[in-house]
Amino acid sequence: MQTSIEETNEFQPKFGAEGLIPVAATDHATGRLLMLAYMNREALEKTISDGVAWYWSRSRQALWRKGETSGHRQRVVELKVDCDQDAIELVVEQTGPACHTNRRSCFYRIVEKGAARRLKFQD
Amino acid sequence: MQTSIEETNEFQPKFGAEGLIPVAATDHATGRLLMLAYMNREALEKTISDGVAWYWSRSRQALWRKGETSGHRQRVVELKVDCDQDAIELVVEQTGPACHTNRRSCFYRIVEKGAARRLKFQD
Repeated sequence: MQTSIEETNEFQPKFGAEGLIPVAATDHATGRLLMLAYMNREALEKTISDGVAWYWSRSRQALWRKGETSGHRQRVVELKVDCDQDAIELVVEQTGPACHTNRRSCFYRIVEKGAARRLKFQD
Repeated sequence: MQTSIEETNEFQPKFGAEGLIPVAATDHATGRLLMLAYMNREALEKTISDGVAWYWSRSRQALWRKGETSGHRQRVVELKVDCDQDAIELVVEQTGPACHTNRRSCFYRIVEKGAARRLKFQD
């Protein structure tokens, strides 16, 4: 009997149509969601071997080591995979802010209730 | 002068090639990452109007209201958008487990260090 993808202990990450898997980076200290980005297989391999986060930039079509220019690197504490193995959680020790706007998290705006749907800044 | 996408207070979610935007659902009580899924525009509209999470199932190619069959629904506490407006954080009050495997979070396996890369179950 084959073990289902949900119950196997084999790491079999599934990359999507563009060869990418989405990655949610969370803060080891607070548990908070910091950012959502993508890895291709090479970025995943480098993240595992280096112990710091590498991503694939879709806009620049290039590998990037998080913090390469800003210094705001992410040390990997845990790398987790989800039930279907098509998403990754990267639990990190974040140096400085995670967001390129210099905010701690990229999720710093809340959609307000009501018809206008304005964004309210927080943090 | 135009306000940049990062600093505008207008909600302008960007849907990707397949018309989908990735959504990280986090637990309002604990801050913990529960699952990563996708919404199309209709799922996003229904989530905002109903106050409970709707997603787009890529495997079934269908809209689904989270908990529709299991009862494990997600009440929306906050809907956040990231700097580039191409990812969403849904802060939810989760009824029961978030994962279809009956675990609290879909991220219940850690990639172990070392060459074998076995998955270690937690939780």
